Amino acid sequence: MEVTKTLAQFVVDSRYDAIPEKVRHEAKRSVLNWLGCAIGASRHEGIDIALAALAGFSGPAQASLLGRGERLDIMHAALLNGISSHMFDFDDTHLKTVIHPSGPVASAVLALAEYKPMSGADFLHAFILGVEVECRIGNAVYPSHYDIGWHITGTAGVFGAAAAVGRALKLNAQQMTWALGIAATQSSGLREMFGTMCKPFHPGRAAQNGMTAAFLASKNFTSSERGIEAPRGFANVLATARNYDEITGKLGQSWEVALNTYKPFACGIVIHPIIDGCVQLRNEHKLKAGDIEGIALKVHPLVLELTGKKTPQVGLEGKFSVYHSAAVAIIHGEGGEDVYSDACVRDPEVTTLRDKVSTEVDKSVHEDAAHIAIRLKDGRVLTKHVEHAIGSLARPMSDADLEAKFRKFAKGILSSGETDALLKLCWSLDKLKDAGEIARASVPAGAAKKAKAS
Amino acid sequence: MEVTKTLAQFVVDSRYDAIPEKVRHEAKRSVLNWLGCAIGASRHEGIDIALAALAGFSGPAQASLLGRGERLDIMHAALLNGISSHMFDFDDTHLKTVIHPSGPVASAVLALAEYKPMSGADFLHAFILGVEVECRIGNAVYPSHYDIGWHITGTAGVFGAAAAVGRALKLNAQQMTWALGIAATQSSGLREMFGTMCKPFHPGRAAQNGMTAAFLASKNFTSSERGIEAPRGFANVLATARNYDEITGKLGQSWEVALNTYKPFACGIVIHPIIDGCVQLRNEHKLKAGDIEGIALKVHPLVLELTGKKTPQVGLEGKFSVYHSAAVAIIHGEGGEDVYSDACVRDPEVTTLRDKVSTEVDKSVHEDAAHIAIRLKDGRVLTKHVEHAIGSLARPMSDADLEAKFRKFAKGILSSGETDALLKLCWSLDKLKDAGEIARASVPAGAAKKAKAS
Repeated sequence: MEVTKTLAQFVVDSRYDAIPEKVRHEAKRSVLNWLGCAIGASRHEGIDIALAALAGFSGPAQASLLGRGERLDIMHAALLNGISSHMFDFDDTHLKTVIHPSGPVASAVLALAEYKPMSGADFLHAFILGVEVECRIGNAVYPSHYDIGWHITGTAGVFGAAAAVGRALKLNAQQMTWALGIAATQSSGLREMFGTMCKPFHPGRAAQNGMTAAFLASKNFTSSERGIEAPRGFANVLATARNYDEITGKLGQSWEVALNTYKPFACGIVIHPIIDGCVQLRNEHKLKAGDIEGIALKVHPLVLELTGKKTPQVGLEGKFSVYHSAAVAIIHGEGGEDVYSDACVRDPEVTTLRDKVSTEVDKSVHEDAAHIAIRLKDGRVLTKHVEHAIGSLARPMSDADLEAKFRKFAKGILSSGETDALLKLCWSLDKLKDAGEIARASVPAGAAKKAKAS
Repeated sequence: MEVTKTLAQFVVDSRYDAIPEKVRHEAKRSVLNWLGCAIGASRHEGIDIALAALAGFSGPAQASLLGRGERLDIMHAALLNGISSHMFDFDDTHLKTVIHPSGPVASAVLALAEYKPMSGADFLHAFILGVEVECRIGNAVYPSHYDIGWHITGTAGVFGAAAAVGRALKLNAQQMTWALGIAATQSSGLREMFGTMCKPFHPGRAAQNGMTAAFLASKNFTSSERGIEAPRGFANVLATARNYDEITGKLGQSWEVALNTYKPFACGIVIHPIIDGCVQLRNEHKLKAGDIEGIALKVHPLVLELTGKKTPQVGLEGKFSVYHSAAVAIIHGEGGEDVYSDACVRDPEVTTLRDKVSTEVDKSVHEDAAHIAIRLKDGRVLTKHVEHAIGSLARPMSDADLEAKFRKFAKGILSSGETDALLKLCWSLDKLKDAGEIARASVPAGAAKKAKAS
């Protein structure tokens, strides 16, 4: 079975007009959500740090840093925008594999689009194919690959970036096969890094590494032709079980981007049903923190495995704390970026309520569900069972929800006029003559001049 | 047990004057051998391809491509020089782990030395520490890590590059710990790539990625503080068994670079005792191919398993033929890159003698040994038993041997005057005011001008 070659041939042969309109629309939603996340985090200190560390090695000003004024070579732009888009852990999720699909792929192709202009349709086509490749490879090795400790957004993302950039560069099948091989041998990213700046570094580096793979292959830098399936290839070395049908079956008939979901809350997806349920209880009963004696959560085992931090000290750690998240959902009625600031994590009202949250693991509770019981000081017990969290495939965010989320991210960075214009560009992406327009329109007026002067 | 922190603290605290002179001398030998390999392969098409693919994204002209005229930013220089140094598979070997230690470390630190000038002693110190870190980490996970399918030169090399560059950048212990973490999460490289350009890509990318880790950490980009030993850190995710004593034991008392070895012959290490013995017999008896009736070899089983090709057709296949290697050892008295050319493999004198070579497998013969019996047309039988091949730890290449190997690589690229000057710089590396001199002296006169004009 020629897994790598089959996948490469599919990417090379794919026709845009054979992709259903519904799939294309979901791709636009993905790009819009990704762009908002990247703009929103563009002033994060992690971006400033990465820029301070690496800008001195950047090549010509080929592509924009989203939401900022600096322009770097496309490799560095892909890296930085990829980091930015995952910094708040607020980007999209392919629930079957917990891959965040857009970061590695869109960060690479949009940077490329500023360097080698391409139509919006070509951009969207490359993006859809990149997501298809990374998620299919993810499907083939999930869950054993993730269970070992690999951050699948990095490890699978590099294939997606290579495929998308390779398609945009019009690689032939031999070159595309090599590009996937060069991607395979760079596949990396450890779950140990969760809670540090290295987590968002993974999709950024995957974007940059995948792009490197595609450019090397475009000049015939050779690699294995069985990078995925060989005995010492990706799927055997980085996973203990694998199913290649997930990669080669129904190619062109099913589309993984259609399964993409978007987070309403700025934290790990496993906490979402808990925030959703706590916000509902708060609003239904006009709850105040002072009324509460205790909050008991019954959750899937993964919730504690991933987000079991009892006493987070900084904002970023708060995102990996189901205790903090439940507390702020009650106190602030939301799970946005604001409630994961250092100040909020240290707020005495929050820490007091946080300490009243207890958890019980129950394997019968689905990953996407939660049981919440709030005991009040007056003796009452309020309960809520969330079967599917908001933002899940069963309860997707609407286009209007996505716009509202985008506007929150853009606030303070773009003017409302700039935000409107950018949203309009996103929704008409498939009609644009030059997809790079979106990247340039993400830069606020004056920022480019300011960056140049500094 | 704090493995990562302990190792980081050691690198930060190390004092050059506490390193024995013998160890420093071995480090100079390693650098000299590495530099020769990189210069020798600098005109290989793989380097031309990588340059064509990536030069458009390079930043300022900060560092030299060894043996060539182009100058790139230090990240790209580290990548390209790392690829070049492993292209012929002729670089150094840490036999305990089969790591090729110098490629990832020296490629990174020498590029840095052109950007942030440092003394030869500081360069050598950083190099020794980088080799120490990568080989200790390799020792801890070998052989399970390698058996899974990881190319350990890439996966361990990234730590070495991060440590060496981090030391040269004067990171503090916290930053060094992060640098090792950022290295851990980029650790990659599959053995499936052997036989393609991706194999030499591994040490190059390790150099570049390790350097990136150190620069990010220098600006306080955060990472795990347990990148090596955490349950989802490097040693648990990329190996099935591990021994942390190999990392933290006897730090500062034993030095891995002292165990480095250098290949005298441009082929798989299992053929080395046969070439060694055949060259000895040739020289002792002034043998000519025409005098010989037959050559009988008694060898370890691995020799035929890895290098049993009876009738190689192209140069690269010759490297996997013990028959060809024995024939050229008699005819040309050597096993350098020249005798593995397509022309040499097809030379009638060579193929005639090659067909007279017979092999017998004997499990009692050590991997590093061989028995050779040459039957002459005049009836005499000449025998040679090689107990340890030249180039092994038991019979190391002398300084003069290394110089001769270096001169062969430099021939046709540097003038003999340039070669003499560069060798002199290498041997006096610890006395140089500016280690970057070595990189610049590897560029032939006129090449820089030519590269600029093109």
